[in-house]
Amino acid sequence: MKIIEKINRCISEQKPFYSFEFFPPKTEAGLTNLYARLDRMAPLSPTFIDVTWGAGGSANNELSLELSRTAQTYFSYDVMMHLTCTGSTADEINRTLDKVQASEIKNILALRGDPPQHGEKWQSCEGGFSYASELIAHIREKYGDYFGICAAGYPEGHLESASKDSCVRFLKEKVDKGTDFIITQLFYDLEEFFEFERLCRKAGIKCPIIPGLMPIQNYQRFKRFTDLCQTKVPDTIQSDLEAIKNDDAAVQKYGIDLAVKMSQTMLDKGVPGIHFYTMNLETSVTEVLGQLGLLTEGMAYRTLPWRPSTVSKRREESVRPIFWSNRPKSYLARTMNWDDFPNGRWGDSRSPSFGNLNDYYLLRQGIGLDRLRESRQKMWGSPQNLNDVHKVFAAFCRNEISDLPWCEMPVHSETNRISKELERLNLSGLLTINSQPQVNGADSEDPQVGWGGKGGFVYQKAYIEFFIEKTKLKALLAALEDFPSLTYHAVNKANEVYSRPTQPGINAVTWGVFPGQEIQQPTIVDPESFMIWKDEAFQLWLTDWASLYPKDSVSHKVISEIPETHFLVNIVENNYASGDIFEVFSKGNFLDS
Amino acid sequence: MKIIEKINRCISEQKPFYSFEFFPPKTEAGLTNLYARLDRMAPLSPTFIDVTWGAGGSANNELSLELSRTAQTYFSYDVMMHLTCTGSTADEINRTLDKVQASEIKNILALRGDPPQHGEKWQSCEGGFSYASELIAHIREKYGDYFGICAAGYPEGHLESASKDSCVRFLKEKVDKGTDFIITQLFYDLEEFFEFERLCRKAGIKCPIIPGLMPIQNYQRFKRFTDLCQTKVPDTIQSDLEAIKNDDAAVQKYGIDLAVKMSQTMLDKGVPGIHFYTMNLETSVTEVLGQLGLLTEGMAYRTLPWRPSTVSKRREESVRPIFWSNRPKSYLARTMNWDDFPNGRWGDSRSPSFGNLNDYYLLRQGIGLDRLRESRQKMWGSPQNLNDVHKVFAAFCRNEISDLPWCEMPVHSETNRISKELERLNLSGLLTINSQPQVNGADSEDPQVGWGGKGGFVYQKAYIEFFIEKTKLKALLAALEDFPSLTYHAVNKANEVYSRPTQPGINAVTWGVFPGQEIQQPTIVDPESFMIWKDEAFQLWLTDWASLYPKDSVSHKVISEIPETHFLVNIVENNYASGDIFEVFSKGNFLDS
Repeated sequence: MKIIEKINRCISEQKPFYSFEFFPPKTEAGLTNLYARLDRMAPLSPTFIDVTWGAGGSANNELSLELSRTAQTYFSYDVMMHLTCTGSTADEINRTLDKVQASEIKNILALRGDPPQHGEKWQSCEGGFSYASELIAHIREKYGDYFGICAAGYPEGHLESASKDSCVRFLKEKVDKGTDFIITQLFYDLEEFFEFERLCRKAGIKCPIIPGLMPIQNYQRFKRFTDLCQTKVPDTIQSDLEAIKNDDAAVQKYGIDLAVKMSQTMLDKGVPGIHFYTMNLETSVTEVLGQLGLLTEGMAYRTLPWRPSTVSKRREESVRPIFWSNRPKSYLARTMNWDDFPNGRWGDSRSPSFGNLNDYYLLRQGIGLDRLRESRQKMWGSPQNLNDVHKVFAAFCRNEISDLPWCEMPVHSETNRISKELERLNLSGLLTINSQPQVNGADSEDPQVGWGGKGGFVYQKAYIEFFIEKTKLKALLAALEDFPSLTYHAVNKANEVYSRPTQPGINAVTWGVFPGQEIQQPTIVDPESFMIWKDEAFQLWLTDWASLYPKDSVSHKVISEIPETHFLVNIVENNYASGDIFEVFSKGNFLDS
Repeated sequence: MKIIEKINRCISEQKPFYSFEFFPPKTEAGLTNLYARLDRMAPLSPTFIDVTWGAGGSANNELSLELSRTAQTYFSYDVMMHLTCTGSTADEINRTLDKVQASEIKNILALRGDPPQHGEKWQSCEGGFSYASELIAHIREKYGDYFGICAAGYPEGHLESASKDSCVRFLKEKVDKGTDFIITQLFYDLEEFFEFERLCRKAGIKCPIIPGLMPIQNYQRFKRFTDLCQTKVPDTIQSDLEAIKNDDAAVQKYGIDLAVKMSQTMLDKGVPGIHFYTMNLETSVTEVLGQLGLLTEGMAYRTLPWRPSTVSKRREESVRPIFWSNRPKSYLARTMNWDDFPNGRWGDSRSPSFGNLNDYYLLRQGIGLDRLRESRQKMWGSPQNLNDVHKVFAAFCRNEISDLPWCEMPVHSETNRISKELERLNLSGLLTINSQPQVNGADSEDPQVGWGGKGGFVYQKAYIEFFIEKTKLKALLAALEDFPSLTYHAVNKANEVYSRPTQPGINAVTWGVFPGQEIQQPTIVDPESFMIWKDEAFQLWLTDWASLYPKDSVSHKVISEIPETHFLVNIVENNYASGDIFEVFSKGNFLDS
C-alpha cells in the first residue's frame, strides 16, 4: 500500500504515527538477528519501515531488496526502499525499479546519494542522474503513479548547498516532480526543524513533512554520526552528554528522555508523526514510543486475530485455518502461490494446493532460523524419555521456554487464560501444540482477545490440538461419546483417521460481529487443511527437534519415535456459550495422574 | 432436486414425509386461488408436490407446465410434473420434455394416461407410446439421468388389467425401465394396499412405494370419484358416510379422522411417507398432518430465516437483503437474471443489477394477485386523511389485516415480540413496513426465531423500517445523535439522503453459528440495495393502494401524497447484546402522543 495514503489517513484521524528505518547488516549473523528483531517489532505496528540502499556494490543492493521483500512478505510491514543515483546509469536504475515493482514494493525514498567515498565530491554516472529531482521525475515519467515517492529534507541545509534557501528550493523542485511526502535528516535542535518547516511552507511545499529522529544510544556512535553529517548539537545536550559519556546505560536513558521530549514538543506543535532512525536496535525506540503513550493504542488494535500480510494479492485475505496460527511464516510460504485468498468464507475461494514444505525450509535458511539450533538445544535439553518431553511442553505453557517447533512465538497473552489447564494436560499424557480459550461475545477492544476495532463483539470456540499415544486416544474417543458438542479429527502418520462428524465440514472457530459490517470469521478448522498440516506437524519432530542430537543418541531416538507412536488430534467445543473443552479429559480417566 | 434423493434421505433418517398433488384449475379465478393456496401451504414443507397433466389440449398442458414452474420458482416447492402418452406422438413428448427441462423441473410422473373420453378404449397415437413403461424407457434413453421418474401403482389392479398379478408385472417392467419410486392410486381398503405391497416386493420391486391417500371432503365428489375409478370402499366406511352424507362438515371431519387413522396404520407398518390427493384444497390435509404430529416438526425447522428457492442456480444462495423480506416474490422476480447468487457473503458475489419492477408486475398478473383489489379495498378502507392511514398500519400490527402493499403476508410470529411497540409507533407518526426483534444467541431450534437446525445459536440485530414525514425526520436525526450504536439510512423519492455512517457498508443483521460450520449470515442491510428497494417501496403507494380509488377521490389524494412528503428510513441497532432500538423514539419527543 502507498505510505502516503496511510499517512493521510492518520492525519485525517488526528492519530500520530511513527515509522522505523533499518539498514542491511554487513554479516549474515547480523541479518539473522535483524530478522528476529523485525519479527519481534512487528506488533509495534509502525506505519511503515524503510530500508536503506546498500552503499556501493550490487550485492549490497540485492540485500536491500531482499530485506525489503522479506519484511513485507513475512513480517507484514509496509516497506519503503531507498534508491540513490550514485554510481548507477538510468538503465541500471530502471532494472532495479523493475525488480522493486515485481516484489510488490510500492514506496521509494529517492535520494541523490552520498559520494562513493566520504570526502570525495559527488559525481553523476555517465547516463545517470545528478539530482534526486531528476530521479523522481524519471520514476514518475516511467512508472506513473505506481510508486509512492518520498524525498529527504535537510533542516540544517544540505552539506553541499549554498544556503538553506537554495536547499529548500531544491526540495520544492523534488516535490514539484512528484514527491508525496518528506522525511528530514536527523537533527537535535528543534528550532532548526521548525525554521525549516516554515521555509518549506513559505516556498509552497504542501505535502507532509516528517521529522527524522535518532535516539542517542551510544556516545561514540552519536559523536561520529553528528560529526560526519555536521549536525548541529545544542550546547546543553553536548555538555549533558560529556558528563555521562562513559556510562552507556546513562547515555541510552538520556537519549530516550531527549527523544521523548523532542517528539512530544513536535507532536504538540502539529507534526503528524515521527520517523525513527533505529540503527537496527529496538530497545530505545520501543521505550520512547511507550513513554509517548503511542504504543498501547497502536498495539491494542488488532485488525484480525492474526497479523495480515501487506502483500497486495493477499490484501483481501480474511480467513485462515487455525493450524498454522503459531507458524504463520510457514503458512505464508506454503500458500504464496495461490491466485486468490479466502475472503469472508474459507469454503468458497480456497485454493486446493498447499506448497511443498521445502518452500518454507528455503525461507528458514534465508532468514537464518536454522541458526537457532544451539539456543533450542539449550531450551529443550536432551530428553532421555517421553516424560522429559512432556516436561518441556509444560515449561512452554509456563512461558519458561520461548518456542517449540510448532510454535514460532511464545504463548499468546490470551492463552494465559487456560495455561494452567494446558500445563496439567501436558504433564498427564498430552503434548499440546495449539489452543484457544472460549470467548462468548467479548468487547472487540478487549486487550486480550479483542480485534477488529470499536463497538463489536468477538467470539471463539475453544480449541485444543495435541499429540497423544494411540492407547490413550482410544480411551479419549470413548470418553468423547458423552460430549456431543465436541467435534474432532484424529490422524496419525499412516493416515488412520477418527473424526466427528464422519463427514466433517469447515468450522468457524473465531468470528466477530461489528456495527455496519458483514460477519467476520478469520479462523476456521478445516479437515482438508488439517491433513496438510499434520504432515508438517509430524515432520517437525524430526527436522526441528531430533536433528539437534547425534543420530545414535537416546534423545534422537526418543524424539523420532513420537511421530511413529502418536496421533495428532484437534478438538473444537462448539458450545461456546456454556461448554467446557477440558471436561472430557477429566472424565475419561485415561490420563496419567 | 430429484425427489428420490429427498425420499431416500427421509428414509435413512427415519423421518416420515408427505407430498401433495394439485391439478391445473379450469378458470383463471381458480388459478388465482390456487396460487394463493400454494403460497399459504408452502410453510407445511411437503417433500414435493406434483401437478397433473391437463387432460386434453395443449393449452391445458401449457398450464400444467406454467403452474409447475411458478410453484417451483416462486413458492419454492420441489415439483414433479405428470406426463401421459395419451394423444401425443414421440416428437410432441420430446418437445414437452425439452420445455420441462428448460424450466428446471427435474421430476416426471410417467403415465399412460386415461382415454381421451371416459368409457372409450385407450388407443396410442400414431408414432406415440402404448405403455408407461415405453415412455419411461424413452425418457431414460433420451435424457439419461436428468429426470427423476415416478410411476403409478394400482393397489386394486388397473381397470384394464387382467389380474393384480399381471398389473404388478407391468409395474415391474416400469421399474426395470428406470422408475425411481412408485405412488399408488387412491384406495380406502388398507388390506388392498398391504397386499399390493407384498406382491410388488415378491415380484422383485425394491424402490419406495408411497401410498396415495384422498381425504374424503365431500360426499358427492367422493362417490363420483370412487365410482369412476371403481375403487373398493369398505362397507363400514360406506355405511358411516350414508348416515352423514347430507352434513358436509361431518363428512369432512369423518374424512380427516379416516385419513389420520389410515396414515397412522401405514406409517406404523413402515411406509416411508404419504402422498395426498388434495383436490386443490388445504384444510383437510393440513388438519390430517397436524393430527399425525408431522406438522410441527416439518414447520419448526427453517433452513434459513427466509424460504430458499428450489431453482437450481439459486441452490447456493444464502444471503439476501432484508428489504424484500416481506415481498420475497418481488425479490425473486427482480433477481431472476443474476448469473450467480450471494453465498456466505453479500459483498463478494452480488450481481449489481436488479431487474425492472415491471418483471414483477407481469408475474403478479400471471399469478392473479391483481385480482385482490376488492379484498384490499375492504381491508384498507377509504382513508380520508393521514391519520386513517396510520390506523390501517396499526391494525396490521394487531394482525387484524392480513397484508399491506409492502407485506405480502401477515406479520411473522417472531414479530409478535415487538408488535405492541410497532402499533404504538404507527399510531404516533411512523408508518412501519418491516422490522425484526433483537436476538442474542437464541437456540437455533427456538420455535419463533430459530433456523438452520440443531445445536446452533442464532442472532439478530433489531431492525425497523418506516415512512416518516420530513419534519419528524429532522427531529429523529437529532435524537439519533445520542444513540451511537444505531446505524441508519433515510431517503426520499427525490434522493435526498441522510445516513450513518456516511460511507455505509454491508451490515449483517441475521446470522447463525452452528457446530462444525462456517458462520451463516442470511440477512443483510445493504445501502445499495436499499436505493433499489426504496423506488419499489415509494411506487407501491400508487400502484397498490392509491389505484384502488377513483383518481379524483379524497382517498386517492391522501395516499398518493405520502410518497411525496415522506422519507423511507431504516435503522439497525448494532448492539444486539443490550441495545434497545425503540428507545430513540421515546427520547426524541417528536412523535405524536
